[in-house]
Formats: sequence, C-alpha cells, structure tokens
Amino acid sequence: MEYRFSERMKNLRGNSIREIFKLVESPEVISFAGGMPASECLPLDAYRTYTDELLSGENALSLLQYGATEGYRPLREAVAKHVGGMGIKASAENVLIVSGAQQGIDLCYKLFLNEGDVLLVEDPTYLAALHIAKTYRARAIGVRSEADGIDIVDLEEKIRTHRPKLLYLVPNFSNPTGKTLSEEKRRAIAKMTAEYGVIVLEDDPYRALRYSGRHLPAIKHFDQSENVVYLTSFSKTISPAMRVGAMIASRTLIAKLTVGKQATDVHTATLSQAVAMRFLREGELERRVEASLPVYRFKRDAMLKAMRRYFPKEAEFAEPEGGLFIWCKVPMPARELFLQAISQGVAFVCGSDFFADGKGEQYIRLNFSNESVDRIEQGIRILGDLLKR
Amino acid sequence: MEYRFSERMKNLRGNSIREIFKLVESPEVISFAGGMPASECLPLDAYRTYTDELLSGENALSLLQYGATEGYRPLREAVAKHVGGMGIKASAENVLIVSGAQQGIDLCYKLFLNEGDVLLVEDPTYLAALHIAKTYRARAIGVRSEADGIDIVDLEEKIRTHRPKLLYLVPNFSNPTGKTLSEEKRRAIAKMTAEYGVIVLEDDPYRALRYSGRHLPAIKHFDQSENVVYLTSFSKTISPAMRVGAMIASRTLIAKLTVGKQATDVHTATLSQAVAMRFLREGELERRVEASLPVYRFKRDAMLKAMRRYFPKEAEFAEPEGGLFIWCKVPMPARELFLQAISQGVAFVCGSDFFADGKGEQYIRLNFSNESVDRIEQGIRILGDLLKR
Repeated sequence: MEYRFSERMKNLRGNSIREIFKLVESPEVISFAGGMPASECLPLDAYRTYTDELLSGENALSLLQYGATEGYRPLREAVAKHVGGMGIKASAENVLIVSGAQQGIDLCYKLFLNEGDVLLVEDPTYLAALHIAKTYRARAIGVRSEADGIDIVDLEEKIRTHRPKLLYLVPNFSNPTGKTLSEEKRRAIAKMTAEYGVIVLEDDPYRALRYSGRHLPAIKHFDQSENVVYLTSFSKTISPAMRVGAMIASRTLIAKLTVGKQATDVHTATLSQAVAMRFLREGELERRVEASLPVYRFKRDAMLKAMRRYFPKEAEFAEPEGGLFIWCKVPMPARELFLQAISQGVAFVCGSDFFADGKGEQYIRLNFSNESVDRIEQGIRILGDLLKR
Repeated sequence: MEYRFSERMKNLRGNSIREIFKLVESPEVISFAGGMPASECLPLDAYRTYTDELLSGENALSLLQYGATEGYRPLREAVAKHVGGMGIKASAENVLIVSGAQQGIDLCYKLFLNEGDVLLVEDPTYLAALHIAKTYRARAIGVRSEADGIDIVDLEEKIRTHRPKLLYLVPNFSNPTGKTLSEEKRRAIAKMTAEYGVIVLEDDPYRALRYSGRHLPAIKHFDQSENVVYLTSFSKTISPAMRVGAMIASRTLIAKLTVGKQATDVHTATLSQAVAMRFLREGELERRVEASLPVYRFKRDAMLKAMRRYFPKEAEFAEPEGGLFIWCKVPMPARELFLQAISQGVAFVCGSDFFADGKGEQYIRLNFSNESVDRIEQGIRILGDLLKR
C-alpha cells in the first residue's frame, strides 16, 4: 500500500542522534558524537542495590502496578526538595515526572505550539529541540548568541517582530556550544519574557556537571509570573537508560502537561522513578556527581590540550565550564571533514544540525565524556591532521 | 501570566482514567473502574530475579547507557518470535518497542492524522484512543458494533463516506465491551481496508487473557498489503508499571514510527525492555499467563454470578471470553448510578466515555480483575440495590 503520512511527518527524517547511535555501535570508532555520560561514572552498584531493596521491600508489588500520570509521589517530593536546594521554590504539585527530559520538550511544545507558531531558540541550540518543533509544524527562529549566552537585544527585537509563544534555552554549558548564560541575562530574560507573555522552557540537563566557576541561579529562580518551565534530567547524573526527568512549573501548567502526558505514555516506568527517588533521598546523587567531576574535568582538559596541540591556529574554540561538549569553528566545511574523519574512524556531529536555519557549516561539536583520554588524544590528532591538510 | 494554550490542548481535560486512578487510591473503595491486572498475579519474584541477574551480568553497564530508539535488540528479536507463534510473520526489523502500547496509538496517529482527518473506531471503543485523537484534532467516527464485533456493512459505508486514514480496533475482549471480533470479520477487514487504502491499528493488549473459546488469528495475520499495524503489550501479562509494548508493522512504517518516537522519549527504559526479553526468552511469560488464567476466570465468573443474582432483569450484559471487563446496559442514567455508587464506596466507569459522540449514557463498564471475589460480590450487591430502587 502507498502510505499517506501526515503533513508533520511526511518529510521528517531521523535527526543526527540516530546517526550517532549507529556510529557508536562499532567499538573501533573513536566517537566524539553522542552526548552520553561517561560509562565508567554510571553508578551500577548503587543502582543494583536500590533496585534490589525496592523489589524486596514492603511496597514492591505497587511498583509493578499502574501508577499516576503525574509521577511517583515520593520522587515528586524528592525533586521538589532537590530543586529547592538550587533556589527554585517548588512543592510536589509543581513537579511532573517525564520519561526523560526530552519528553518534557515534546509536552511543552504540545501544550503551546500551533502550526505556524514561532519558537525562539538560541542559535545554535540542541538539535532535538529543533527536530521536535518540526513535528508540530512550528517555526523555530534563531536568536544571536554571545560568549555569555543569548543576545538580549536581539531577543527583544525578535520577540517584538515574531510574537513567539515560547523561548527554548539551555542555560548551563549549552548543547552544542558549552556556553553558560550570565546571571545578569537570566534575570533580564525572566523579566522580559514575563512582560511580553512568552513561555520560557529552561532545559538544564548539565547543571550538576560544572568543572570550574560557581553555580548560577536558574532563570526559574527569577520567575515572578509563572511563565518559566524548568526541565531537569537524571540522564547525565544517574543513567540515561532509566528515562527519568522532571518538569517544574506552576500548578496550572503541570495539570495541563499531565493531560498531555496521559495521552502518550500514561506514566513513566515506576521502578526507574523509585530508583531515582532513592538516589536523591540517600544523598547518593550528590556523592556520585562529586566523584565523577574529576573524571569529566580530566577528559575536558585532555581534549582542550590536544586541540591546542594538534588543531591549526585557524580553529576557534572556547573552554566550557561544564557539560559534555566543545564547540569548534574549523577552517573547512564540517561535512567534508566528517566524511574524511569517519573513513579514519573518528566521529563527531556537524554544526549545521544545531542551527534553526541549517547554517553553521563551519562548526563541529565534540563530545569528550565517553572516550578514554588516550583515545581522545588519538582522535583529536587525526582530526588535526585532516584540518591541516 | 495568562497562558495561551495550543488549539489541540485548550479544551482538553484529563480523561476518566485519571479519575479512576484517584478513586483507586483509597483502599476502602471497591473499584470496578480501572483496567489493572490482578495484583496477586504480578510476577514479582521473577521480575526481581531477572532484574538482579541483568544488573549483575556482563553487559550490565550497557543497560544503564543510552540505547537505540527502535528498542533493545534482544527484545525486538524475542517479540518477533513471540508474535510469530501467533501467526504473525515478523523479523526484528518489523518491531518497534514502545513505552506501553498506548504510546503506540499516539505514534500511529502522529504518523497519519492531520487536523480534520477521520479516524474510524468501533462504537464504543477504548477511551484513550478517542482522547489521543483529540490531541491531533482528528475526527473520530464510530462504526456500529454487533455481538461478534464491528459491523462490516456499516464499516464499508463509513469508509466510502468519510475516506478515513485509520481504523482503530481492539479485536480480542474489547475495552469496554469484552466482545471478540469473529475470524470471518478479521479476514474481511484486512481485505476491505487494503482495497480502500485504510491503515488498521489493531490494538491487542488482552489476547493472552482468554478464559474460554479458542485463540483467533490476528487481523495482521491476514495482512497482504502491509496496511495493518499490530500493537501488543506486556502491561496485562508482566507489569503495567514497566511501560513496555511493541508495534509490529512493515519496515517502512517502523522506520517512520521510529522518527516519531525519537522526537518524544528517545527510547524506552532499557532495564524494563531487558526484563521483558527475559520473560519471553525463558518461557516465563507463558507460564505466568497459564497460572493466572484460573484467577481471572474465577473473578469473571464471580462477577457474572453476582450480577445475575443482584441486578434487576432489565440490566443487559454478555459473558466475555477473556479480558478484564463486563459491559452492562443499566435501566437508569449511568452518571446518576455512578454518583450514588461512589457515595456507597463502589466505583466503575460510565459508558459515555467510550463513545465517539458521547452517547451511551445507559452503559457502565465493570472491571473484575483487581478486587477479591468477596468484594466483587459485595460491590455488585450494592450496585444491584441501587439499580432496583
């Protein structure tokens, strides 16, 4: 039969994340693609202990039965307390548990975006935030970016011109650029979006992975008008495979987002939620993050050092204070470098995937978290040789 | 701030499933609402054993890391073999693992339905299938139903009139009616929909729970044109909380559905998938189903017996051959009965939630799987007294 697909899906292909997963499947490839946490930092022992205790406990049977769409109540409470420690006031009623933070992006778009509506993003931005926008046939428009994050003047201009429903931002160690939004700008964004009636989707999966500098308050911390939706994730700090994230928003928004979630996966896997709750409640999350920071910092520094050594001086990059990525401008088309690199067993993601309008063909995103320092050096040397040819 | 919600979500309220979960939270209420598997049949010991073995095994770390959107490969293979045993030809490439079968409904609608497109459903049908349709602003139109399932003549007429993209059906022990579609009709539906170019979404979560009669081949078994999408679930046979289901379709459709899934939750929780794989591979799924059938049959019979004893003769109901529900026409408005019943501690779901046009106000859906036989008798007696007033 000839299939008549919906308009939203007809021309949509898989985004580069799929490409990435497929590359990573071969262990010979040195992969700077992906955005995986360091495998050696995954807390397998604690995960197994908590799982075993939960499935041996008094309430074990209830962990196998249907649960509430809003999420497992003890996790909602633990998340409220957890974000409270970051300066975000919340009770359990302000928390919706999602099946990974990415589902939070999808639900937020579902709640606000009609076909043709404008979504503002920092340019460049997380590629899935652009990909999901396509499934709602919304228009993603990029806002200029500076060293300390989105350009406030350009943001206001684009808000006036395009009357967007939503602004999507990664405030800490942005994917792909590694940039951090300054405190001053966070405050200004909260104020400006409230004035213009724009929802801010603050996607903050990397916050805990800070290797230098001090933690900054979230945009949500400055939210006076309940127009900021804060999104957090346990994918980088506990396990991505468990698929657990959380949205923090006003009760009105949480109620509506819950209706949206109910219409897709009913609720998030309960055992995953209960394990996350144990990590939070026992303080194990903090301890694990503390223990993993030196590992990540070491890898970041190894990659930066190798880049300084092997890359031509025309290559431009900054040192990210945290997260998983180094963003680099290269003196040749990224697509070309990609093809040559792949043939020599090195992978990364081309920059153009992260721009709302597909520009950025001279940028590459390098992930440093999931390879050993030896392989990081080896891979960067190969890329450097190709760039110098 | 005043929120400007999308058209799709603006007027959408939570469906009755949420109402159900909230009622069930109080243990005093005798709940015939919900559609939960019997808690005493949940295979906690095997679940714990498999989880422990998986997290202690050689590949444990990979169960905590990101996985492929299509699903955990060993589970995809096990599912292909499993449905093969039911007469559905499939390889792993025909399988997409979803976060509960309900996500499969959502993904299938996402792939095909534009705003205003018509979706045909048996009238009455699973309420979430109607609810999800609203999030795509599609028009759900009901097709008449007979004792052996959907009316083929009315179906063809409605296909000609409305040119639907999709037909949604629960072939075995339908939710809410408990009806089973005859083999003859299955064959006819496969042929007719292929001729008219209509996609069939065959949602089959209850198949294993058959208490009398013989298993019938799926509509998918008769699919010659790759227009049937088969949806199966482990929610009623292993655990609903693990949120694992599977879609079986042509490779073209699986590839497109994967793009849709990627744009929402990236992939289904891996440990859940690995546990499901173990249940299938070890034959434990079959053994558990075998062991649970007498429990379910006993409860069904207890409810039917109590209904025959306590309900007035004006109440009409049939004996379902499997599944979780008895559908009953009552001699008073269901909403009124509901309010009275709740005040006496008995819950059920009103029939009108299951009709595309909200009619059916004289029907009620009774679930028999999640209460003891004593409480089933007690609850039915209370309903009977109210009906006889």
